[in-house]
Amino acid sequence: MKALAFDVFGTVVDWRSSIIGELEAFGKSHGLQRDWPVFADNWRAGYAPAMDRVRRGELPWTRIDDLHRAILVSLLEEAGVEAGPDELDHLNRAWHRLDPWPDSVAGLRRLKQHYLITTLSNGNVSLLTNMAKNAGLPWDCVISAELFRHYKPDLEAYHGCADLLDIAPEELTLVAAHPSDLRAARAAGLGTAYVARPLEYGPDATPYDVTADDFDIVATDFVDLADQLGA
Amino acid sequence: MKALAFDVFGTVVDWRSSIIGELEAFGKSHGLQRDWPVFADNWRAGYAPAMDRVRRGELPWTRIDDLHRAILVSLLEEAGVEAGPDELDHLNRAWHRLDPWPDSVAGLRRLKQHYLITTLSNGNVSLLTNMAKNAGLPWDCVISAELFRHYKPDLEAYHGCADLLDIAPEELTLVAAHPSDLRAARAAGLGTAYVARPLEYGPDATPYDVTADDFDIVATDFVDLADQLGA
Repeated sequence: MKALAFDVFGTVVDWRSSIIGELEAFGKSHGLQRDWPVFADNWRAGYAPAMDRVRRGELPWTRIDDLHRAILVSLLEEAGVEAGPDELDHLNRAWHRLDPWPDSVAGLRRLKQHYLITTLSNGNVSLLTNMAKNAGLPWDCVISAELFRHYKPDLEAYHGCADLLDIAPEELTLVAAHPSDLRAARAAGLGTAYVARPLEYGPDATPYDVTADDFDIVATDFVDLADQLGA
Repeated sequence: MKALAFDVFGTVVDWRSSIIGELEAFGKSHGLQRDWPVFADNWRAGYAPAMDRVRRGELPWTRIDDLHRAILVSLLEEAGVEAGPDELDHLNRAWHRLDPWPDSVAGLRRLKQHYLITTLSNGNVSLLTNMAKNAGLPWDCVISAELFRHYKPDLEAYHGCADLLDIAPEELTLVAAHPSDLRAARAAGLGTAYVARPLEYGPDATPYDVTADDFDIVATDFVDLADQLGA
């Protein structure tokens, strides 16, 4: 193994707490009361179907920033909330300002000493770059589905990442908190490291049922991952 | 200005001293005496014509690593030197191990506090990523001509960089030690910052004749660039 490619939303950053915090601040500044945790979950829930429309060719290539914005506009409309375009842009860029899980930066720093570490996310390059700058994520490079115009779990995203790094798929391991992403990576010939993020969908969500032999590595967080990899 | 895109070979790293050093080590291990500085200059000199063949469509898209390797093979042949494929690969990857100019890392660290900093190089992504890791170059992201399949000075490389960062061309400034690169960036609508690297082609080379008003910024090194930008 030469390099680790990280899924980002949910795996590296806690999108839900961050988005709820930004929505609450937005609500407060507008004197609005809404169920912001549900709004956040709906915003996130709109993302997979929107990507799937791109993956099936029903939509031309569209960045996550633009998919997020379209979902946001429709959710605000449903909620009867008005917002100007600058405000919308700022709120939409909450996804550029997501906070890492408490162990993410420390784990990445250790892993970086031993491996090349990159993103492999459906987030666009500018989103991932701004997020890294804001959150102090020490990537060696920023690789996005945008570069291949293929969203994960399309094979092209996993192979494209290995190709840009000029390594074989089996020299690359995907790190993710989502079994479906890892299964697609395995089908593409990559190694797989599952990291549990039981709070990704909030305290009431049912965690994934993953056992130690489901993937090459199963870790409790990035520090545990670094321990297991001797980093 | 929101972001700075850096040319790399010659601007950030001192390719000539690094390559001469690697060739001398290679020569020593083979008991060979050759004029390694001239060999290094010829290796570098082969690169622009090879890229131009790609730019004109006479060659399909080919990474710099592969262009470098083809030039190396032919120069070694001319010099009557034999090398196995692993040795060739290692020597060719000398371009992944280039040393920065003495001010590069300090200047980049300061600039990174105020701007997004990225590569915009004809070097491929793996080359630039390995180089950054080896030399401690603190890029926010790694952007390469490889991502656009257009070598600089093609317009697509400059516009592609701004597009990936999701900023307007005029919000992006190219930093380079080569007037031709900067002129093409200006034609694409980017800001321009010239940094003098009088030793790039060795102590006997004639430096470029650049005056203070030729580009938006004219600096003596990256520390001076950071000073001028208040970083």
